[in-house]
Amino acid sequence: MKTIKIEELKEFSKKALLWKGVSPEDAETTVNALVTTDMFGVLSHGTKNLYQYILKMEKGGLDPQAVPEVEAEGPAWALINGNAAIGMVSACKAMDLAIEKAKACGIGYVGVKNSCHFGAAGYYANRAAKAGLMGISMSNADPNMSIPNSCAVALGNNPFSFAAPLKNGKSVFLDIALSNVAALKVVMAKEKGISVPDSWLIDSEGKPTTDPSDFPGGSFLQPMAAHKGYGLAIMVEILASVLTGSGIMSDVTSWNLDLPAKNNAGHAFIAIDITKMMPAELFEKRMMRMITELKNAPKAKDAERILVPGEMEWEKYELAEKRGYIELTDAMAENMEKLSALTGIPVTVQDKPE
Amino acid sequence: MKTIKIEELKEFSKKALLWKGVSPEDAETTVNALVTTDMFGVLSHGTKNLYQYILKMEKGGLDPQAVPEVEAEGPAWALINGNAAIGMVSACKAMDLAIEKAKACGIGYVGVKNSCHFGAAGYYANRAAKAGLMGISMSNADPNMSIPNSCAVALGNNPFSFAAPLKNGKSVFLDIALSNVAALKVVMAKEKGISVPDSWLIDSEGKPTTDPSDFPGGSFLQPMAAHKGYGLAIMVEILASVLTGSGIMSDVTSWNLDLPAKNNAGHAFIAIDITKMMPAELFEKRMMRMITELKNAPKAKDAERILVPGEMEWEKYELAEKRGYIELTDAMAENMEKLSALTGIPVTVQDKPE
Repeated sequence: MKTIKIEELKEFSKKALLWKGVSPEDAETTVNALVTTDMFGVLSHGTKNLYQYILKMEKGGLDPQAVPEVEAEGPAWALINGNAAIGMVSACKAMDLAIEKAKACGIGYVGVKNSCHFGAAGYYANRAAKAGLMGISMSNADPNMSIPNSCAVALGNNPFSFAAPLKNGKSVFLDIALSNVAALKVVMAKEKGISVPDSWLIDSEGKPTTDPSDFPGGSFLQPMAAHKGYGLAIMVEILASVLTGSGIMSDVTSWNLDLPAKNNAGHAFIAIDITKMMPAELFEKRMMRMITELKNAPKAKDAERILVPGEMEWEKYELAEKRGYIELTDAMAENMEKLSALTGIPVTVQDKPE
Repeated sequence: MKTIKIEELKEFSKKALLWKGVSPEDAETTVNALVTTDMFGVLSHGTKNLYQYILKMEKGGLDPQAVPEVEAEGPAWALINGNAAIGMVSACKAMDLAIEKAKACGIGYVGVKNSCHFGAAGYYANRAAKAGLMGISMSNADPNMSIPNSCAVALGNNPFSFAAPLKNGKSVFLDIALSNVAALKVVMAKEKGISVPDSWLIDSEGKPTTDPSDFPGGSFLQPMAAHKGYGLAIMVEILASVLTGSGIMSDVTSWNLDLPAKNNAGHAFIAIDITKMMPAELFEKRMMRMITELKNAPKAKDAERILVPGEMEWEKYELAEKRGYIELTDAMAENMEKLSALTGIPVTVQDKPE
């Protein structure tokens, strides 16, 4: 098992972005989003993707120096044109503006068009929670999921996240895609040669299948809970794309498979200033009332405990913080090496300490 | 098959509410919500429940003359105390206020505490869509669903809905509870003596089961898509209850099994004024762009067509409007008769026309 020190990961990632002409401020913003995501254990959406983001800049699909612009705004809303800037840069700017609007009006909505893959939706919802507000974030994506009665991909598995603040700094949060499972889980089952539950995939006739061997291309992800996940993905498509002026469904390209193309994804961010509605102390007390009841629910046989949404991620985050390093997946280690080779910036990866 | 004319259903329902001392205006509001829900084909959440609402007024759990009050508000938000008024009355007032806030600020959030079962969440989301805005509505409920690692009910299957307007008046909308299926579906399988998919229920040890015979009491609903539905139900619990001051989880009673108790449910409503962000014509064009791509997705074998969220409900609504009557379920016909016997108000139910 290979590991990388968090400080090294931050430094290396920042240098790689600067090498490509990204401003120090935008590099900092991007690195914070990616490394925080890694520390939460969501390694599929963190610095692993930095190599492809930089390649996308090389190929012209992502503009390292673009500045996202507020094109229109009102008391509690704004629309931002991402101008094909790094997704994390546009998304952070948008959530910060939603927070500002919420502090003035109670709630704020900010939409983003012409953006790129923003990584983990949870980072932005947590950005609001860190500021003491409740946050909701979402994005559309290129079609990568089937819908009821289709026999192919038809809609993005549009990520959705919310976070609610707690005084200890560890929010209650959820960060999900709206397919039943992530594509990565199907690929892992395929590699192991095992079957999958029949709610994960449909085959090329549109029937549920337990065989992952044709994935992707010959079988397709199902939305979570069938028409329910389909409907929620449509809600995200409307809020993040129809309403923002961004790419709709197939107007969004695959951010990593079509590197020269602008990604054209859209995002939506909502912040709610809870302190307008009740004192922060009362909100905290009521959150703890909810959490206590959840924790005290009767446990399933052999279950040690009941987790509150986000709890597992915060435990991983704290472990990473305490250790000062994170464990690398093979895919992540490989991308670090490739990025180092491309940029000529050395990166130090270590064996896991005893 | 028994049927009832829509005008007769409205008149009878209104008279029953007036009989109990509800004001003509509140009776009108309530009847519109319930009958519209019936016309959408959601018979479990429409006038079938009027008998229990009236019984709840008789037993003291619901106040027929209560007036919901705005207790606090700001530019884009408000909190309403339902004062144990009819859920539909508080919910309509709240969504109307969210619409007003959204028209002023772009987006509006209104929370409701001390409310009662509000019927179908979709009615309120559609109330916003009817006014040309996008609407989101949600409510908590008494714990009626398990959560991951529990072996009993632990959290409400908190309903959630959104609606986006179209020029033809037929919104794109979704109205769901956050369990994998409705309890009614499990009860139907139990009555037929058939097994259910293993994603519907857990048994008393917390393990997935396909046997509905012990439901309810010995087996428990699963959240949709496991931790994903659990997390979304927590988001609803926070927005509709923690943040509104309403009952949290077990503070909410069963509205229909515990008639003398105040229900204490909380709701949340969000409206977004799309015309602030783009001309209504452009929004319509972009919605149609999305709908066209959905409709044109490759069809599964034997699938006739792909449905847009809400399309099936609007078809049922239009059929009911055209026919002028709706078909009654046995449970609904039975409740109509009971309500007629209780109030002494006659109700005319007919055989289905040839």
